[in-house]
Amino acid sequence: MTDNHIIAFTRGVPPIESFPIKRLEECAQTVLERDGNCLLQYGQAAGYVPLREWLAAQYAVSKGQVIVGQGSLQLLDTLVRVSLQPQDSVFLEQPTYDRVLTIFRRSGTQLEGIDLQNGLLDVAQLEEKLNAGMRPRYFYLIPDFQNPSGAVMPLEARQKLIELSQTYGFYLIEDGPYRDLRYHGQALPALFELAPERVIFMSSYSKLISPGLRVGFMILPPELAEMVRKFAEDTYINASYLNQAIAYEFIQRGWLAENLGQLKELYRPRLDTLLSTLEAEFSGRAEWVKPEGGFFVGLNLAQGICVPDRTAQQKAGLALSDSRGFFIDGGEQFVRLPFCALTPEQLEEGVRRLSRAIFS
Amino acid sequence: MTDNHIIAFTRGVPPIESFPIKRLEECAQTVLERDGNCLLQYGQAAGYVPLREWLAAQYAVSKGQVIVGQGSLQLLDTLVRVSLQPQDSVFLEQPTYDRVLTIFRRSGTQLEGIDLQNGLLDVAQLEEKLNAGMRPRYFYLIPDFQNPSGAVMPLEARQKLIELSQTYGFYLIEDGPYRDLRYHGQALPALFELAPERVIFMSSYSKLISPGLRVGFMILPPELAEMVRKFAEDTYINASYLNQAIAYEFIQRGWLAENLGQLKELYRPRLDTLLSTLEAEFSGRAEWVKPEGGFFVGLNLAQGICVPDRTAQQKAGLALSDSRGFFIDGGEQFVRLPFCALTPEQLEEGVRRLSRAIFS
Repeated sequence: MTDNHIIAFTRGVPPIESFPIKRLEECAQTVLERDGNCLLQYGQAAGYVPLREWLAAQYAVSKGQVIVGQGSLQLLDTLVRVSLQPQDSVFLEQPTYDRVLTIFRRSGTQLEGIDLQNGLLDVAQLEEKLNAGMRPRYFYLIPDFQNPSGAVMPLEARQKLIELSQTYGFYLIEDGPYRDLRYHGQALPALFELAPERVIFMSSYSKLISPGLRVGFMILPPELAEMVRKFAEDTYINASYLNQAIAYEFIQRGWLAENLGQLKELYRPRLDTLLSTLEAEFSGRAEWVKPEGGFFVGLNLAQGICVPDRTAQQKAGLALSDSRGFFIDGGEQFVRLPFCALTPEQLEEGVRRLSRAIFS
Repeated sequence: MTDNHIIAFTRGVPPIESFPIKRLEECAQTVLERDGNCLLQYGQAAGYVPLREWLAAQYAVSKGQVIVGQGSLQLLDTLVRVSLQPQDSVFLEQPTYDRVLTIFRRSGTQLEGIDLQNGLLDVAQLEEKLNAGMRPRYFYLIPDFQNPSGAVMPLEARQKLIELSQTYGFYLIEDGPYRDLRYHGQALPALFELAPERVIFMSSYSKLISPGLRVGFMILPPELAEMVRKFAEDTYINASYLNQAIAYEFIQRGWLAENLGQLKELYRPRLDTLLSTLEAEFSGRAEWVKPEGGFFVGLNLAQGICVPDRTAQQKAGLALSDSRGFFIDGGEQFVRLPFCALTPEQLEEGVRRLSRAIFS
């Protein structure tokens, strides 16, 4: 089995066939022609003004609350650096996005995972911790098509979370990169829409246009936004306006909406195939959320069943992420299956290989 | 006096008329056409491979020692985060680049300034500190056309510094963004050329192509490079390949060399005018290095003469940086004059205004 034939369920990357290369070329040319002097000069650390103004209008906030940077992860890192002390604590869903866990870990703050039980946040566990006197500064969440589980948080849980954040005075950090990638069913309101004053919203165009643009953003309360902006300026002066202007031009031409439509057509059959193959191969042997969108399905293997090790994966022609990265503790029985960059055929074959690697 | 007429000696920015917009447009189009799938996908944290390979050849190091990112300042911030503890100490020229001082200050390390006396590093002071037992981890320097003084370090001082770094086991961090912008005279060897094993070299294309590309790089010993790479990946996955590919294409077409030639023609008369006007207006009232290149001339005002405050600057139609930012302590009698973004006429008028603001 050569590397060429390995089916990779590793990172959550979009497929290259989804990149609107020609259109981005056109946008690059247009913005350089129209606004080259501004784009090629140093800029403001908060980001390219037209994009920030557009985002401010979208999220009904002031421009000063919008920070655009080199991906949303870096903005989260900056927020952590300006606002967290080692004596603070942060709550996270467990499992959660591994890179975010790494960033919070570096801050030296106390991290508390609140379990996702088959995709449902264990609100009783959360209340127990709060009742016991724990006072997080932030609760980081991905309410829509969660990474790595695929879960969507029900409306009641969203409302309960906001109520608790108000009672106990913590901010919800809502990470929304997959929110617009819904292939079936109806969207629920974002936490940010329900309670903008309690929510820091972050997202990016990596999954909606292309990761290579490195354009992400964060909507923050004014004081925190100013702290992040100043720290960003002191650290990297500004992120590239060129990339931000390309994204803005793409949006203004109506191409983001069109692109989203195409992505949904591309990803919908992939998700459907993954779910039907899982049903055939893993029924009774694992539990999983059946998401209606996003990038991931997360498998919780049944008691006593473990994730195949690297050697077994290689033998089966598979590559998986190390799932322990998604958990503060544990993760040995969890498998994340990113499905967007694999064809339906590869997904079928991949799930079969996973099944063989585990059960044969 | 309206804002429109204010002459700004504030940041070291290139003039917009220096930006090769059309050529960058062509490069953007070419690289997206040729390599769009790669540029628009997630990439390696160390940077776009062809640019790294080219830099590795230029600096005669392995590709693994080259990290390309969103400006060299951010790479320095990352180096500081991965390698400095509060108990460490760092030496810097005094005065030095204010943004770098901010980054080192944040690390909580002990900072020691080694005075630049009329552009000459006070080597006796340095040896005294070393003899007293101080052991810096890094000595950050800008040997060529220093920011903010304009000084070029003589060869003997370079050799002495390397000798001391070898004896006492510290790294020299050589920041070289202005090195290629020499308008008169002959270049001296870079510290990195003299002793690559003791020097971390950093530079960027902000001053050689355009700041808006946000492409900087760092050459490090292999172990430190790997630490920076891993930390960068955990923080921002990768900096934009698109921008790095544009810079690379620009270089490959021979346009960097051409651009440098044009920049020198543009900046040479600006420097010459600034120096002759200073001679006419400040002789006997200040001392300054007479640089043969770069972006800055730094004035040390004579004893008892102070930098005009903001109100006096405004009244005179001037804007200056707060020079205290360039010093660990002091800076009240220092004025940095960035000259590249002002025409010879503006420079003449600006120096006259500065003179009037101080002496009338």
